[in-house]
Amino acid sequence: MRNRVTLADVAKAAGVNAATVSRSLNPATESQVSKETARKIKKIAKELGYTPNTVARGLRTRKSLTIGVVIPDLTNPIFPPIVRGIDSYLIPRGYSAFVVNTDGNHDIEQTLISSLMERQVDGLIVATGHTEGDLLTQYHQRGVKVVMVNRESPGIPFPAVTSDDSAGISAIIEHLVTLGHKNFIHLAGPTDSSTGLLRSRTFTSECKRLGLTGKVIKNESYSIDDGQAAVDKLLDHGTRNFTAIVAGNDLLALGAYHSLRTHGLKCPEDVSVVGFNNMPFTADFQPPMTTVNAPHFDMGVEAARLLLSQIDGIDTAPVKVTLPVSLIVRGSTASAL
Amino acid sequence: MRNRVTLADVAKAAGVNAATVSRSLNPATESQVSKETARKIKKIAKELGYTPNTVARGLRTRKSLTIGVVIPDLTNPIFPPIVRGIDSYLIPRGYSAFVVNTDGNHDIEQTLISSLMERQVDGLIVATGHTEGDLLTQYHQRGVKVVMVNRESPGIPFPAVTSDDSAGISAIIEHLVTLGHKNFIHLAGPTDSSTGLLRSRTFTSECKRLGLTGKVIKNESYSIDDGQAAVDKLLDHGTRNFTAIVAGNDLLALGAYHSLRTHGLKCPEDVSVVGFNNMPFTADFQPPMTTVNAPHFDMGVEAARLLLSQIDGIDTAPVKVTLPVSLIVRGSTASAL
Repeated sequence: MRNRVTLADVAKAAGVNAATVSRSLNPATESQVSKETARKIKKIAKELGYTPNTVARGLRTRKSLTIGVVIPDLTNPIFPPIVRGIDSYLIPRGYSAFVVNTDGNHDIEQTLISSLMERQVDGLIVATGHTEGDLLTQYHQRGVKVVMVNRESPGIPFPAVTSDDSAGISAIIEHLVTLGHKNFIHLAGPTDSSTGLLRSRTFTSECKRLGLTGKVIKNESYSIDDGQAAVDKLLDHGTRNFTAIVAGNDLLALGAYHSLRTHGLKCPEDVSVVGFNNMPFTADFQPPMTTVNAPHFDMGVEAARLLLSQIDGIDTAPVKVTLPVSLIVRGSTASAL
Repeated sequence: MRNRVTLADVAKAAGVNAATVSRSLNPATESQVSKETARKIKKIAKELGYTPNTVARGLRTRKSLTIGVVIPDLTNPIFPPIVRGIDSYLIPRGYSAFVVNTDGNHDIEQTLISSLMERQVDGLIVATGHTEGDLLTQYHQRGVKVVMVNRESPGIPFPAVTSDDSAGISAIIEHLVTLGHKNFIHLAGPTDSSTGLLRSRTFTSECKRLGLTGKVIKNESYSIDDGQAAVDKLLDHGTRNFTAIVAGNDLLALGAYHSLRTHGLKCPEDVSVVGFNNMPFTADFQPPMTTVNAPHFDMGVEAARLLLSQIDGIDTAPVKVTLPVSLIVRGSTASAL
């Protein structure tokens, strides 16, 4: 595929020099020319059918100006805001983000990462948290730039941007204790994710510290179905010695809503339920969900910033960035009395 | 980046010939060897650190085995299921899907499409519905394979997979008329999308045909904020001569929920609200949303199937596939009396 219209053609038609055209059409340098000039040149470039040759630009700078973003499950509403945060940082700097969805499948993840690397992306932002014994390890050894987002990687010291999982769980327990709750169930996320592990560990240590009864139920995935099945299993066996469910994320919490409803129990009158993430739509659920707000858009921005600073060689240390969280009290928690 | 481990190395270690290794590691041909052999070879390939050279495979077949997927807004929950549908068809056939999010911005869309084309994707699946006077037109003229999904393209006869928008709106109006409603508001989606146009036109023609009062309010985007603002504007001006809101999609309908609540009106007691799409979580809203189910996952599958048949030269006609929809009655609609 060849562009027959060149930068020089656009410059000639616009009556400016080629450098001005180049600056106007590159989002990273556009601010160096006047708004009016940039608008005029873009219009002419469009009319002539000129598209900037990013590959050529990348060859000069030895960059492809593309980044791969590896997401475990796009249907979990926390991930689209992370992608938008990544885009909001990358696009004004002339980069494109290619998103791949692994569907939580390790083999598919390996295939997609290979595919991205073969297309010469400059780096990867990985939200699946899987790195041990896989392709990322090999790429890391060859100097490929990788930043983890939302979940940390076990084993390898990749830079990572996460939210403060421990502080979030502590805030939930404190809120529930204030409401008089003493007997808890924790619907834990997958133990092969740092979020699942950290939230579960904090739950256990906080219960111990405060002398509370806390039972941990492990789930294979962060899904509505798994949350519902876990609570179904408890209630079907007649286990009702708990007044509050601390879910590993909002989807597991929503599954708990479904199970309670099926069993004729009311939330929050009979059982309080708390989620984690404050994903989109939680305020619209019946009842509106009490949850911990994690700043997903900002996590995306920070991950993109870290990755570009790694690529540009500005900052090559394996930095860990933890963003603060806050408890959002809504209608799914009430007094235990 | 070079793989030091070759196909021959894996073959030697596994005690099989290179063709068997090649078949085992290609999802498209894996079924030609026994499950046990494939598992053994994958294990050895992994241990040795071998990754199939997809680029080389692509060079032989003149394909890159990658597809670009252009999405207007990943935070609209209808799009992730479309992506999963696309993946479910492509991945078993050895293809990877690279997803880009345009954030509804035309300039960003053009940049991202260029970026995908420069990385030599074999084709594009486009969900933004924008094609007139832009890059896709030029690529189309050069023979690039493009399939539209969810929204049709104006102007150019690209193959397209959509849901039956007209049938959906007709079913909604019939449902509301049965409940005794006569005065309607339609929160129309953007008029530069085929879904916005078709749903709005059907609304108007159905109201005319049935002798109903139907006012159309145009929205710039399919968003909660726009839906809320539109209904706010009506209610702030004292307009209350309607008993039902037919929203262009579920997000606009959710915005209507918010506005009604702010103005002290109850849904469905005071005003019935209907969405469109049956996006994830609509059954969990307060009240559970009456909406039209569009088969998004299946639309993704069908779009991927059409694109590969275009790429393989099996079917090069600009086929239009319309998938059937069905009305899902939940708690947001009630009798007008």
